[in-house]
Amino acid sequence: MHRVAVMGAAGLAGGELLRILCQHPHLEVSLICSSSSEGQPVRSSHPHLAYAYRSRTFVSPEAVLEGEWDLIFLALPHGKSAPWVEGLMPLVEGGRRIVDLSGDFRLRDPREHEIWYGKHPCPQFLGSFVYGLPELNREKIASARLVSGVGCNATGVLLCLYPLVSSPLWANVLDVNVECRAGSSEGGSRPSEGGMHVFRSRAMRLVSPFVHRHMAEVVQELNIPAQSLSMTLTAVEAVRGVQCLAHVRFKDPVSEADLWRACRGAFGSEPFVDLCPARPVHLRIPDPKLVLGSNRAMVGFVLDRTGRRLLIGSGIDNLMKGAAGTAVQCANLMLGLPEDEGLAMPPVYPA
Amino acid sequence: MHRVAVMGAAGLAGGELLRILCQHPHLEVSLICSSSSEGQPVRSSHPHLAYAYRSRTFVSPEAVLEGEWDLIFLALPHGKSAPWVEGLMPLVEGGRRIVDLSGDFRLRDPREHEIWYGKHPCPQFLGSFVYGLPELNREKIASARLVSGVGCNATGVLLCLYPLVSSPLWANVLDVNVECRAGSSEGGSRPSEGGMHVFRSRAMRLVSPFVHRHMAEVVQELNIPAQSLSMTLTAVEAVRGVQCLAHVRFKDPVSEADLWRACRGAFGSEPFVDLCPARPVHLRIPDPKLVLGSNRAMVGFVLDRTGRRLLIGSGIDNLMKGAAGTAVQCANLMLGLPEDEGLAMPPVYPA
Amino acid sequence: MHRVAVMGAAGLAGGELLRILCQHPHLEVSLICSSSSEGQPVRSSHPHLAYAYRSRTFVSPEAVLEGEWDLIFLALPHGKSAPWVEGLMPLVEGGRRIVDLSGDFRLRDPREHEIWYGKHPCPQFLGSFVYGLPELNREKIASARLVSGVGCNATGVLLCLYPLVSSPLWANVLDVNVECRAGSSEGGSRPSEGGMHVFRSRAMRLVSPFVHRHMAEVVQELNIPAQSLSMTLTAVEAVRGVQCLAHVRFKDPVSEADLWRACRGAFGSEPFVDLCPARPVHLRIPDPKLVLGSNRAMVGFVLDRTGRRLLIGSGIDNLMKGAAGTAVQCANLMLGLPEDEGLAMPPVYPA
Amino acid sequence: MHRVAVMGAAGLAGGELLRILCQHPHLEVSLICSSSSEGQPVRSSHPHLAYAYRSRTFVSPEAVLEGEWDLIFLALPHGKSAPWVEGLMPLVEGGRRIVDLSGDFRLRDPREHEIWYGKHPCPQFLGSFVYGLPELNREKIASARLVSGVGCNATGVLLCLYPLVSSPLWANVLDVNVECRAGSSEGGSRPSEGGMHVFRSRAMRLVSPFVHRHMAEVVQELNIPAQSLSMTLTAVEAVRGVQCLAHVRFKDPVSEADLWRACRGAFGSEPFVDLCPARPVHLRIPDPKLVLGSNRAMVGFVLDRTGRRLLIGSGIDNLMKGAAGTAVQCANLMLGLPEDEGLAMPPVYPA
Repeated sequence: MHRVAVMGAAGLAGGELLRILCQHPHLEVSLICSSSSEGQPVRSSHPHLAYAYRSRTFVSPEAVLEGEWDLIFLALPHGKSAPWVEGLMPLVEGGRRIVDLSGDFRLRDPREHEIWYGKHPCPQFLGSFVYGLPELNREKIASARLVSGVGCNATGVLLCLYPLVSSPLWANVLDVNVECRAGSSEGGSRPSEGGMHVFRSRAMRLVSPFVHRHMAEVVQELNIPAQSLSMTLTAVEAVRGVQCLAHVRFKDPVSEADLWRACRGAFGSEPFVDLCPARPVHLRIPDPKLVLGSNRAMVGFVLDRTGRRLLIGSGIDNLMKGAAGTAVQCANLMLGLPEDEGLAMPPVYPA
Repeated sequence: MHRVAVMGAAGLAGGELLRILCQHPHLEVSLICSSSSEGQPVRSSHPHLAYAYRSRTFVSPEAVLEGEWDLIFLALPHGKSAPWVEGLMPLVEGGRRIVDLSGDFRLRDPREHEIWYGKHPCPQFLGSFVYGLPELNREKIASARLVSGVGCNATGVLLCLYPLVSSPLWANVLDVNVECRAGSSEGGSRPSEGGMHVFRSRAMRLVSPFVHRHMAEVVQELNIPAQSLSMTLTAVEAVRGVQCLAHVRFKDPVSEADLWRACRGAFGSEPFVDLCPARPVHLRIPDPKLVLGSNRAMVGFVLDRTGRRLLIGSGIDNLMKGAAGTAVQCANLMLGLPEDEGLAMPPVYPA
Repeated sequence: MHRVAVMGAAGLAGGELLRILCQHPHLEVSLICSSSSEGQPVRSSHPHLAYAYRSRTFVSPEAVLEGEWDLIFLALPHGKSAPWVEGLMPLVEGGRRIVDLSGDFRLRDPREHEIWYGKHPCPQFLGSFVYGLPELNREKIASARLVSGVGCNATGVLLCLYPLVSSPLWANVLDVNVECRAGSSEGGSRPSEGGMHVFRSRAMRLVSPFVHRHMAEVVQELNIPAQSLSMTLTAVEAVRGVQCLAHVRFKDPVSEADLWRACRGAFGSEPFVDLCPARPVHLRIPDPKLVLGSNRAMVGFVLDRTGRRLLIGSGIDNLMKGAAGTAVQCANLMLGLPEDEGLAMPPVYPA
Repeated sequence: MHRVAVMGAAGLAGGELLRILCQHPHLEVSLICSSSSEGQPVRSSHPHLAYAYRSRTFVSPEAVLEGEWDLIFLALPHGKSAPWVEGLMPLVEGGRRIVDLSGDFRLRDPREHEIWYGKHPCPQFLGSFVYGLPELNREKIASARLVSGVGCNATGVLLCLYPLVSSPLWANVLDVNVECRAGSSEGGSRPSEGGMHVFRSRAMRLVSPFVHRHMAEVVQELNIPAQSLSMTLTAVEAVRGVQCLAHVRFKDPVSEADLWRACRGAFGSEPFVDLCPARPVHLRIPDPKLVLGSNRAMVGFVLDRTGRRLLIGSGIDNLMKGAAGTAVQCANLMLGLPEDEGLAMPPVYPA
């Protein structure tokens, strides 16, 4: 058994980590930290996990400085992780590992970070983190001590575009406009007027026309020009789930066979990524309902008659494959465990 | 045309008043007040009414002291109305009228008020207000200058029980346990963790077992003993709508005919209350979906085989018949207008 | 008072017509026809309208051949209207009027009709119908005896694109890809597996990639080349509401001022179309929640920094502005009534 | 590994069995049968499980007569199981096992069966089945070859009432009225008008006032008089989840301590039943959201001030603890496996 600590454990991503970890065969949660809920029982924030963490309470984040753990998950808001990373560096040098789910160490270029998140307090560590999407960076993650988690929308977009970028098709792409449709859990649990059920219920709210800060992750990891991409996010009725839908234009016509080849090349041996079959038509682009509660991702595409326009889409559960699930997948790799350990829960459908 | 002012106009009940008033043939909104949104355009809080209040902005509540209006709606949170009522009393003595939608003047007994809402700042006015449910107090309302609005759940329960209390059946009643199921708009628009979509969506949350403060209104208006009644509220998935379902036990068996007689006696000539037909069974107890967006109420019942147990239920839109709609119905009566003026919008179904 | 008949009155569009007509000051419903529900009370299909049509029952469609009416609404499924139109032609020649909500007479070219709906049984009448969107064809509608209703998604797309097509901007447009997001009432009330709540709830189901038959209406009415347009429909969680979002590319950069000019030129004096204000950003593209239950449409846009990419969107209630509301708007025009009569119900928000 | 067959595998309960079985460490699905979907890929009905049953197709039910399996799950509609049971009896005598999820063998008394389901085709087998709720009948199940699955609402009610019936409190009970609130998956996936999203969405539809056929199971298993119980079911907005809420009246006052003792006595060592803590109040009665996708059940209670009225409630996922989950729990017991094997998936919350 490896011991893991969770910081920010009272939030949504923290709760999802606890949900995975309570039945993980080789990870044991040694510290459950929350500054806002210190001293409260874990079930006060996560009543669905009362049975699994019966007598456990949230402890002070400071406990991690003394406590026993091999790997720590930082499930903190953007900007709150960086100071902790700085403080934990001596322990990392001593062999411990960090998976940071916030946006603090996703971007390697401090100027990019500043554009999207503000000035970075410790840019000297930006280059030390590996971007934690195993489908792109499996080997680097396996040998890393510092891994950054992924943006949920970024994950969805990366899964849409990776088949194109990793194949000869990319040279033929003119531009890419991505639509994302996301549930309310993307916004976290902190009270806000826009997140209130009375307003958020059944919304079709275009919160981000053209530009979303997760674009920076996509551009960095795929190494593509920023201007080739736009990204528009609509908040729709759902709690969990992100559907990303890339509208792609090609210079020259492409064939379905080209696309199947690209998709199979990208994900053919991936344990958590499934390609949508060619039939039925209404399931060619994945509905995130089909992966609810699981670490699975689905990718599918439709080519128009001219072969010059493509819709390629992905569906994930933003709290799992878009956050906590991928974080545990990284932890498994970092600790030499089977990559899918503790992540085999099948999707809950219909729900 | 009569001029009306609205205080607390940026909230949900305030918005619903504006929605009704924008197409009311004989009421003109002279002042739209909000302390929190003063200076903002009305559409900033009520984007659905942008077309109707194009260039109007929220003004300071203080404007009502000087402004021209014949009747004022106070759509303020509990506890905020009372001080304004005190300040407006000289104007009332000069002939102006108040409809207060808050809970501040619903209960006539200051001790009861203190139990449910805390100590009343100006109990000397409690006795001057008429409880503004026209189905019970039509004539008193028509001649009043001070009318209190209704609690949304109280309205639902009053409509369930009034047929029993106003008929010989009441002497035969042993006890009454009421279930209410309510949408999220009951909780207002102020951000709270429990109201966040991520937690509130699809909830079945028993917020009030046995006891709800709207019971005090019911007991007062029906003049029944408090101990004959319990009231349990469950928050369910909906934005608008309250369904109240009274489980009633009788000493001696009663007949369907007795109940039809009681219901017709109570509501037979009411302009906004409809009785559910005997068929089909699944519509005998009303679903509030059927009155969405309208000022209508539905009442229906089912008697068990023994004649000793009754389910009698009501369905309303809590923002309309449970708040703003009934308030305008009162205003119509107070100003000598046809009672249903401006309130003829049919329910939006299915929605 | 003018007398109107409704055929197909037991369906969703038929119910919505009855909802409007029950409070229309100058239209009186003389015949409520349904072949499937003949002899049933109107409330059996439309329980929300029980109060308005108390003792009315559905009558046989054949009744229209003898009955008294000045204008008839055909709210029949695609393919079922055409035979009736043929049979009613003698009455039309005698001065009566038809508004057909189905797709049977929307397309003037019988070859186009055949592509999308199959062979037309009476193509000789195709050219006699005016496409019933007053925002495009007000004057023709006012003088017509035969008017076709509109497709709900087509209405949404037409409202998005009309400002471009009716201004100099269109010459600068490279291509247009439209996303539509639609609620479940688009699919009608006939039982189907895909429409069952258990599967349809919270869906993000891409039912129509690139191609939708409402494109034919758009191309015809705007007189634009078919290949300049794609249209993709996603079924999302809502009962009512369509949001259309056109992704437009321009050859040369355009300015916000150009777009405001185009939008104001197109809709500046329209009684039911509102432009979204420039602030706040998350309301620039309209959410159909904001027009629920009303005949209103909202149109808004966002231009990207380069001025070469535009998002222009619309929000409507598909059963109102996308079907029954616009049909009554046409009937008002045809009968010489004020265009907005009976259509002033404000949107129900939040709901 | 034990081999299991699933009949009726294309339905909702069948899909849920496959979802559990695909990651069960000691059960292997040898036959996936469906008469309606024979020859189709499993993913055509269960697209969320495409990854787990890649090349598997539904086979004819007749295959079970020849096929290799140790235990068979019958996930057929009411009335369709009995004929199969009759045909499989020779195999059962040869040592095979049946778990029947339908209502065909839940009631031991053929007269009761006839009242609720119609005349039984093979009543001679009714007495041979054990009612498959391990919380009541663990030992009998472990030694049985024929086990009946449970009604979902019955399970919820049994969990509410078992603490009372199994303790001295029952002698003090006057009557019990149960409210159930249920999601749409209770109704299955077969298309019906009432199940269509357009009508079912956000419903509060009282489908069963006073009487529900699951009462017969409750009365039989608790061995209580039928007249002590009423059961009212409301369809509410959810796909999965049943909340049961028993309103109980006592002759003499009882104490909270009595109730805690009764609840702990009933469920203190149950692996899947959790008691709601005394705080916070709004979680004393469980919300089925908290067990979504899992085999867990929650039970909680509130006593009123007089000690004479009790609300005791339960929350389950109707497809899991109310159907497929409990069926696998039984299968584990029947095959000598650890009872919770394959059933450890934690609840998905929030969702």
